[in-house]
Amino acid sequence: MDFAPSPRATDLVERVRAFTETEIDPVEEAYHRDLAALRADGDPWQPLPVIGELRARARARGLWNLFLPAGHEGPYAERFGTLGGAGLSNTDYAPVAELTGRSHLAPAVFNCDAPDTGNMEVLLRYGSEQQKEQWLEPLLDARIRSAFCMTEPGVASSDATNMELRAEVVGEEVVVNGRKWWATGIGHPDCEMLIVMGLTDPGADRHHRHTMVIVPRSAPGVRVERQLDTMGFQDEPGGHGEVTFTDVRVPLANVIAGPGRAFEIAQGRLGPGRVHHCMRLIGLAERALELACQRGLSRTAFGKPIANLGGNRERIADARIAIDSTRLLVLNAAWKLDQGGPGNALSEVSQIKVAVPNMAQQVIDFAIQLHGGAGMSNDFPLAGAWTSARALRLADGPDEVHRGVVARLELMKHGARR
Amino acid sequence: MDFAPSPRATDLVERVRAFTETEIDPVEEAYHRDLAALRADGDPWQPLPVIGELRARARARGLWNLFLPAGHEGPYAERFGTLGGAGLSNTDYAPVAELTGRSHLAPAVFNCDAPDTGNMEVLLRYGSEQQKEQWLEPLLDARIRSAFCMTEPGVASSDATNMELRAEVVGEEVVVNGRKWWATGIGHPDCEMLIVMGLTDPGADRHHRHTMVIVPRSAPGVRVERQLDTMGFQDEPGGHGEVTFTDVRVPLANVIAGPGRAFEIAQGRLGPGRVHHCMRLIGLAERALELACQRGLSRTAFGKPIANLGGNRERIADARIAIDSTRLLVLNAAWKLDQGGPGNALSEVSQIKVAVPNMAQQVIDFAIQLHGGAGMSNDFPLAGAWTSARALRLADGPDEVHRGVVARLELMKHGARR
Amino acid sequence: MDFAPSPRATDLVERVRAFTETEIDPVEEAYHRDLAALRADGDPWQPLPVIGELRARARARGLWNLFLPAGHEGPYAERFGTLGGAGLSNTDYAPVAELTGRSHLAPAVFNCDAPDTGNMEVLLRYGSEQQKEQWLEPLLDARIRSAFCMTEPGVASSDATNMELRAEVVGEEVVVNGRKWWATGIGHPDCEMLIVMGLTDPGADRHHRHTMVIVPRSAPGVRVERQLDTMGFQDEPGGHGEVTFTDVRVPLANVIAGPGRAFEIAQGRLGPGRVHHCMRLIGLAERALELACQRGLSRTAFGKPIANLGGNRERIADARIAIDSTRLLVLNAAWKLDQGGPGNALSEVSQIKVAVPNMAQQVIDFAIQLHGGAGMSNDFPLAGAWTSARALRLADGPDEVHRGVVARLELMKHGARR
Amino acid sequence: MDFAPSPRATDLVERVRAFTETEIDPVEEAYHRDLAALRADGDPWQPLPVIGELRARARARGLWNLFLPAGHEGPYAERFGTLGGAGLSNTDYAPVAELTGRSHLAPAVFNCDAPDTGNMEVLLRYGSEQQKEQWLEPLLDARIRSAFCMTEPGVASSDATNMELRAEVVGEEVVVNGRKWWATGIGHPDCEMLIVMGLTDPGADRHHRHTMVIVPRSAPGVRVERQLDTMGFQDEPGGHGEVTFTDVRVPLANVIAGPGRAFEIAQGRLGPGRVHHCMRLIGLAERALELACQRGLSRTAFGKPIANLGGNRERIADARIAIDSTRLLVLNAAWKLDQGGPGNALSEVSQIKVAVPNMAQQVIDFAIQLHGGAGMSNDFPLAGAWTSARALRLADGPDEVHRGVVARLELMKHGARR
Repeated sequence: MDFAPSPRATDLVERVRAFTETEIDPVEEAYHRDLAALRADGDPWQPLPVIGELRARARARGLWNLFLPAGHEGPYAERFGTLGGAGLSNTDYAPVAELTGRSHLAPAVFNCDAPDTGNMEVLLRYGSEQQKEQWLEPLLDARIRSAFCMTEPGVASSDATNMELRAEVVGEEVVVNGRKWWATGIGHPDCEMLIVMGLTDPGADRHHRHTMVIVPRSAPGVRVERQLDTMGFQDEPGGHGEVTFTDVRVPLANVIAGPGRAFEIAQGRLGPGRVHHCMRLIGLAERALELACQRGLSRTAFGKPIANLGGNRERIADARIAIDSTRLLVLNAAWKLDQGGPGNALSEVSQIKVAVPNMAQQVIDFAIQLHGGAGMSNDFPLAGAWTSARALRLADGPDEVHRGVVARLELMKHGARR
Repeated sequence: MDFAPSPRATDLVERVRAFTETEIDPVEEAYHRDLAALRADGDPWQPLPVIGELRARARARGLWNLFLPAGHEGPYAERFGTLGGAGLSNTDYAPVAELTGRSHLAPAVFNCDAPDTGNMEVLLRYGSEQQKEQWLEPLLDARIRSAFCMTEPGVASSDATNMELRAEVVGEEVVVNGRKWWATGIGHPDCEMLIVMGLTDPGADRHHRHTMVIVPRSAPGVRVERQLDTMGFQDEPGGHGEVTFTDVRVPLANVIAGPGRAFEIAQGRLGPGRVHHCMRLIGLAERALELACQRGLSRTAFGKPIANLGGNRERIADARIAIDSTRLLVLNAAWKLDQGGPGNALSEVSQIKVAVPNMAQQVIDFAIQLHGGAGMSNDFPLAGAWTSARALRLADGPDEVHRGVVARLELMKHGARR
Repeated sequence: MDFAPSPRATDLVERVRAFTETEIDPVEEAYHRDLAALRADGDPWQPLPVIGELRARARARGLWNLFLPAGHEGPYAERFGTLGGAGLSNTDYAPVAELTGRSHLAPAVFNCDAPDTGNMEVLLRYGSEQQKEQWLEPLLDARIRSAFCMTEPGVASSDATNMELRAEVVGEEVVVNGRKWWATGIGHPDCEMLIVMGLTDPGADRHHRHTMVIVPRSAPGVRVERQLDTMGFQDEPGGHGEVTFTDVRVPLANVIAGPGRAFEIAQGRLGPGRVHHCMRLIGLAERALELACQRGLSRTAFGKPIANLGGNRERIADARIAIDSTRLLVLNAAWKLDQGGPGNALSEVSQIKVAVPNMAQQVIDFAIQLHGGAGMSNDFPLAGAWTSARALRLADGPDEVHRGVVARLELMKHGARR
Repeated sequence: MDFAPSPRATDLVERVRAFTETEIDPVEEAYHRDLAALRADGDPWQPLPVIGELRARARARGLWNLFLPAGHEGPYAERFGTLGGAGLSNTDYAPVAELTGRSHLAPAVFNCDAPDTGNMEVLLRYGSEQQKEQWLEPLLDARIRSAFCMTEPGVASSDATNMELRAEVVGEEVVVNGRKWWATGIGHPDCEMLIVMGLTDPGADRHHRHTMVIVPRSAPGVRVERQLDTMGFQDEPGGHGEVTFTDVRVPLANVIAGPGRAFEIAQGRLGPGRVHHCMRLIGLAERALELACQRGLSRTAFGKPIANLGGNRERIADARIAIDSTRLLVLNAAWKLDQGGPGNALSEVSQIKVAVPNMAQQVIDFAIQLHGGAGMSNDFPLAGAWTSARALRLADGPDEVHRGVVARLELMKHGARR
């Protein structure tokens, strides 16, 4: 249970912190202003040039593809990525990811943003050589971006076996028909590939019916019907799209790992993704608490700094306790993943998937409250942060499903069969 | 403690329900679609024509200015307002307001929307005859709309005595200089008057320093700097504006009730407003629970309707209990107001101001969770409803201030001086 | 929805209050001291004489059998009970019961204590003339006391159909074999009758298998195995016993309402009992809040009255809000019972059975915290009060079962079959 | 941040586990039965012989004085204590203490029980050689036991500077006058020494007014007035006494570390004690969850194991998450103590003092609920466990004080002076 980052990770953390403070933080306000201006003009579905500039600078300093997992990085760590050519352990990536989570822009700048990281991991672990060459390399190189299409509007998607979009194998092709939504990132003009989960063999057992298939964004029959709002936010320029697939045909070689393996891949994909999301949320909650403390000390009401009014100090303490204990829980999950892989951390990953977004939602809600109306406005990053935390209580499996996993594993210690 | 609505109110409830179901509900989806289209075109700061049509129809059926308070309605109830010419008691208005709260459009359609209702009440109770003629009558007639300018970006506005915008009496004029924000409704093209709270006499005791003054929207020096986001929403076409006042001059006759009386008026204005907000939120929470039940029964995961999974039934029960107990608390506050006016219901009004938005936030959060991603999107009214409930934990006094009032009154029973 | 007590109830409330303050409160400390002395001597299973004296005085003033329900009081209201010979409506009984709940002794003094009241109601509603004469009259007259035997140690008794104790009809007798526990009051030397729920016909449908039968305490084969602790308390002199029944034979005439009707009777018995429990808990919570306020104002730490430290005022406010809203919920349930009987208040009774004990547990826990160690000691009634509230989350149906009832009725509005 | 126990600690954990399972657990039921019999006879203030036997066996296996802190163990580790003669680090002691916390008897059996451990630490760190010889050695040898007298009935003892008992230095003596309560362990016949905190110099600054002085239990003027109940429990044979001191005279040499240093010693004493309490509570909560799972799988209601009803699985998951995250928080505090002493872990120790008892209270409350009435009885260790957790929310500083410490340290990061 050694959660301390390695010297290499410690160094990396310092470099990421320095870069974020000197390069990213100073431009963030202008970024949001410029994006708001594009939005007011009705054209926010494009990346602002500053992102590209920051990416080039980050990459030049070796702060690139930091998410690449140790043991799976192949030749890519050296060619496209991280310091010294070796991926980081989960324990080492944790403090790095936490830092990037403090900033709205940092994950994209370091090429460590969802859903691209998850998609790259899928290709790294399950992709064919051809798939890696065609899609993984440009993603690592940030020439293209990607989307992940799993959730469907017509069914309760918390049960992955419910998915109804068809991915039929017809000869040497896969024919895709159906509708997905919450395809994050699909609004971005660089988004060129979609990983789509579809039903292939309804007669197979429920965990072998579905297939993961790569669909080019430009394939005939792929249509983004609309961009969805999340609590009023559209998260441009990537957004979250609703997408229809009408007789979309792709070569059989676009199937990942083989037909019927989507369920397995989804679990494999979402595992590390969940940990990364949680690591970043810790950073977001930490920042919210900082803002709350600063506001609490700088504003006065009824003759006192508002931090000293009523239960505010107690809430600051509760926030500190909640952040620290969930951070330790995340480190523990990361460490167990490092020790024995996903099978060694089933309960731990589900535990943090429940605990961290709920913690973050609550800490940020308190920070909003302490800011008054300003907290709900876009003058502070709190409204966006809250929405991220809230969304994570649903994305990658709702709280209830993860509680179910934790409880099942607990009861199985006492003889329950499931 | 008779909370039953009078026969007249019962009749009114039925008529409001029928109108809402047959006239408003069917057009709501189109309304949001049209507004989204205007927004995409960058021009949402205008009322859609359907609102005017619905208002005319509602008025023709006597469903107009229903908020007009019994005992203060003067000749207006007959001329502009409500059935039979007499205002409703708070107890009678409660179920009516709850019904309107279920619908995003209904409050505006029945001319019962914030902040106009609060402003009309101020004029009714404190306005001069001239002020009533010039501003109250067109508001009751819906020829104009209004805004209320109290909160300031530079100070903790939970303490009303903090307000720094100057409203100086210079001869026969009042000169206004400063900055306000969260001026709800100011984006509406019909918004023609602002009630502004400003500091007049810094040397007076803290509850007599400020003045309420009517400022025409068109007065030179009034400038809407921007429209604020609330958790990503702009609430067009009214919005919430940040406004600067630069050497704005209005006649002394625009002062309401006399210089130095702003604090008293603010308390008087916010009292009934808080009760109305709470009544509407009960309706909103009720609708969220209905949606949750319907979704819970119509979607299936892991082989069961999702209502039957895990703790969902328990949460449905908790929501029912929370709604019913807070509704009773609101009725109790209304009844106490009817019995003895605001002074008779100080604790009760603060109690509901704490209990109801928190209850609604939680019930709606659960309804969102049961809807999955759809719950956060604009396909359901839940994201907007949540934001309304969350905002009400700050607007008209944050939770903490109202808890302070309740505790002070409680401790004074046991000898505390405050 | 008129929750106001009638003039008669208002008068009664004043008289109960006066009697409690002048007769009961002054002797309570001595009562507990004397009971502790008996306990230290190993002989607390006897009533202290003061109870008998207080009962005589209460009865002389007409404060007797106040629980007798209007409409079911028959000739008893006049002969044994309440003012003017007529039972109280639930709405009228509510404030009376709340008052008695503030005091540990008052329910017994007014002959309004569980489980006797519930047993008397069973006899009143379902008993034969002979049963009434033999058992109801001496109970109303306080010549004897009684116990209710439903819960069993061997099965999950939250599901009443699980009960395994046998009550076999053999000729003109019922033969009882099995084990019960949580037989409240069975330790009292005046306890002469037990109402026992037993399995009669395992082949019948699950709601008609069980029978309620009256068993004299002195019947051969009835044995109190031990007295149970409840969080360390034994609640002498009545206690909560574990009882075995070995070939206990009683005449068939001791069956209440007929074989197979136990489930129906249990539901009928527990309904009003739950409401009474909730009414009394409101009083208990109210008293805890008073103690908290008094302690908060009279003790000083870090230079301030402790009521003014940290979040204490917020917690006082939350307690006030919680008490007031659950009291209204109880009044609403009582009113609905008065309007249309138990079938009219199924959800309402389950709502309060969930809401009130949880509220009381939380309010009392806060009061304990504000008292420091003293709060957990017997110097204050808080430890006992907490235990009562906690026990009520299990007794008469655990929270989870009642939440299930509320949810089922809610979902049935939307088409669920159960 | 290496929380893994050393090989030595791992070995110790296994040996403690084996001893507990084979020697202690099998006799626990008989222990409670025998104690109850003594209680019924009015004479429970004596240790049962089995404790002495178990202690001898534990000591023979080197499972003795395991709490002795590394770096402060002096020659005692070898002579009286722990394996190999060296004390354990906090990180190493954590899993050992957690194990002992699962059992009601284990802490006493291993001579690791409060308040003796805290008193021994005080003597070890602050005692004179004479004090060590006279009191520490027999305590380590278990020839005597001890009590700690800090809390007073007359003042809010959460503020240690409030203490009013006088400890006046008169010539070569200290004269003690006043009243203390919650003197844990004072009922035990082996209790021979009391560490008493008294006011010596009211004119000094508030943190240097008080003195810690050793008072023999047998000194004239020391009188145990009564034994206190804690939620109905008396915790015999040690109990929690109220004690008066009337002109009690002890030599000046009995002052610990010098007059005026009580505040400093109290902080030093309570620090490790708090961590030990929290470690043990983790074990207690873990055991409660095990019992809940076992009960949940073995009892059936409404046709299902009760673990599968309603929200029970969600609560099992929440309990697992809460236990694991607070355990990590405790390990983190222990590790920080090991790295840099108490000054390095001020916030961390206060964090766990808030988080752990609240977590344990909630987990145990759930376990009680799942057990039904049995959970509140003495048939399961849950009622006692709950009371321990609840008491720890007050003992050694109430939640509110520790939240205040955490908040102060947090705000000081942002410039607050305190």
